Amino acid sequence: MDHTDGLARAGTLSIHDHTVETPVFMPVGTAGSVKALPPDDLAALGASLVLANTYHLYLRPGAEIVRQAGGLHRFCGWNGAVLTDSGGYQVFSLQDLRKIDPDGVTFRSHLDGSEHRFTPESVVDIQCALGTDIAMVLDICTPYPVDHAVAAADLEVTLEWARRSRLHHESVASPKPALFGIVQGSVYPDLRRIGAQRLIEIGFDGYAIGGLSVGEPKEPMWEMTAVTTAELPKEKPRYLMGVGTPEDMISGIGLGIDMFDCVLPTRNGRNGTAFTSRGPLAVKAARYAADFSPLDSDCDCPVCHRYSRAYIRHLFNAGEIAAMMLTTRHNLHFYLSLVRRSRRAIAGGEWADFAGEFLERYRSGAAEET
Amino acid sequence: MDHTDGLARAGTLSIHDHTVETPVFMPVGTAGSVKALPPDDLAALGASLVLANTYHLYLRPGAEIVRQAGGLHRFCGWNGAVLTDSGGYQVFSLQDLRKIDPDGVTFRSHLDGSEHRFTPESVVDIQCALGTDIAMVLDICTPYPVDHAVAAADLEVTLEWARRSRLHHESVASPKPALFGIVQGSVYPDLRRIGAQRLIEIGFDGYAIGGLSVGEPKEPMWEMTAVTTAELPKEKPRYLMGVGTPEDMISGIGLGIDMFDCVLPTRNGRNGTAFTSRGPLAVKAARYAADFSPLDSDCDCPVCHRYSRAYIRHLFNAGEIAAMMLTTRHNLHFYLSLVRRSRRAIAGGEWADFAGEFLERYRSGAAEET
Repeated sequence: MDHTDGLARAGTLSIHDHTVETPVFMPVGTAGSVKALPPDDLAALGASLVLANTYHLYLRPGAEIVRQAGGLHRFCGWNGAVLTDSGGYQVFSLQDLRKIDPDGVTFRSHLDGSEHRFTPESVVDIQCALGTDIAMVLDICTPYPVDHAVAAADLEVTLEWARRSRLHHESVASPKPALFGIVQGSVYPDLRRIGAQRLIEIGFDGYAIGGLSVGEPKEPMWEMTAVTTAELPKEKPRYLMGVGTPEDMISGIGLGIDMFDCVLPTRNGRNGTAFTSRGPLAVKAARYAADFSPLDSDCDCPVCHRYSRAYIRHLFNAGEIAAMMLTTRHNLHFYLSLVRRSRRAIAGGEWADFAGEFLERYRSGAAEET
Repeated sequence: MDHTDGLARAGTLSIHDHTVETPVFMPVGTAGSVKALPPDDLAALGASLVLANTYHLYLRPGAEIVRQAGGLHRFCGWNGAVLTDSGGYQVFSLQDLRKIDPDGVTFRSHLDGSEHRFTPESVVDIQCALGTDIAMVLDICTPYPVDHAVAAADLEVTLEWARRSRLHHESVASPKPALFGIVQGSVYPDLRRIGAQRLIEIGFDGYAIGGLSVGEPKEPMWEMTAVTTAELPKEKPRYLMGVGTPEDMISGIGLGIDMFDCVLPTRNGRNGTAFTSRGPLAVKAARYAADFSPLDSDCDCPVCHRYSRAYIRHLFNAGEIAAMMLTTRHNLHFYLSLVRRSRRAIAGGEWADFAGEFLERYRSGAAEET
């Protein structure tokens, strides 16, 4: 770690020829593109690490096309770093279309119904073919709510798959991605502890906390995060998967999380909700029709520099794609800026003050009052 | 004119604080945004003059909102010049929803069915409220095919409205937009000549040729263009409305046209057709799945510099908005580059060679052969 401040950490991830400062927010680029924001625009916002989805890229365009292109970076024209998820989350979301066995999971494509199979080993191979920088192990993302017994059984499979993933990863020729393990265990502290300890025994380049932000209340979510991070080695990066709101990121950073991903800034951007320093703003609302102030008057992003709420509202009302583009840009800037400012606050030993001030202003709801 | 080469012209339009070099292509920004390309991206492509639609902006967000914002440039965050059409074309396209009388036209909004009225004077006022740089007179865009008698009657109304527009424009306080007249007359040379001569008698800052590219064959379209430009004063800009393909722009420039607008580069960009130096390319086609070359290997645009046909095809297949954004950017670059290169060729006295070489390569269809 470069700096710590309480449990909060500021670190540097070096992966292949990429350097990623943490805490980091990873924009979600499911199919090799962050929605409504091509890679060069994403780079212009200062994003350093993007999340891509193994399941989606495996089905379309196919790992072989990406491999032929020279990997995801070349294929997508993206010069930053890439983390690919394992596809487990997507496959297990298919519900009726998938069948788990101890060796892996068989599923049908949501695109054409064709049958496919993921094993811990094949998922490592696919991510290697994609040329990712950070690969995730195949895991079972236990749904919420779930009995302790089911969560424990899922965890056992996840741990066995993690062992096999690591073993297979060791056999892959370099250059190869870093490999992260994923702690499961639902909302049961004992399972989370066991999950973390046994992954550490196997040994990974980083540790993710999975199976949270899947419908459980905030209290167990943060309890599980705290229980898990307490077990994790201080020198390895920690990734809280699928989290979250700006407030969630503050909470997560405060508990020692280094990495986040979430669709909120992009999805909400397309739906017309802007994140601002004074809380979310529903820019389509009629009250902004003649509001010529920027989305966030405290924001230094190119969108707030140039465009008004009235203009962006008009673009949404007129069904213009530019509305989604501009709000997505702003929202991602907001998220990326939040983690950058968090890092500076941690480095300066001012984390608690920064977090408190951010939350107070964010929760004031003043964005909607103008 | 800065240069002429045969009938082809290279000029400079100075409007308010904007300088526009001609020949110029105006991207179409109907509702105050070029589709899938926000104003800052459009500026980055080197566009100097954009077309916005009076009818659309009048209905939504309303001229008053734009006026309150300080005009279209301020409202849209666009630093270049703006030409607004008169709304005539859109209103007359409404067919069952509009009724023409000698004084103006009453129509129902395509958005909510509400009743509105445009007169030559009100349309000048609306464009002044929008803060445009170049305003167009209200005209009757005669459909094709049409009898000589109907075309002549429409022309009479258009000319009377032009006279009233000019008179009203003179009464407007400065700063005010330049005002262009529009020559109608369908495919009848005598009407086109009369239309041009009488507009010249009234006196405008520039002259547009309207009512072409509305379904007539190419031959009368170019005959009418030639007949009309022969009448027009050499020192005033000439605008061929709604034209056209890259080949059309070459033809138009060769006949002394200075200004063009067309939805083709943007609409086709959203539909997956890229304009290239070797002809159009349907980038969604399966044959590009593993084609890692750029849309156009002779193109120096940021899209071709960074992204491959395979990637853009993948984005279209995955339904990613970025596909439309990237292909729109490329297509507009292609159009803007074509008029810039045309200008250089005219200035260098090499217009005929340039036009011939462009057309030979463009018509080769080689883009689809790789």
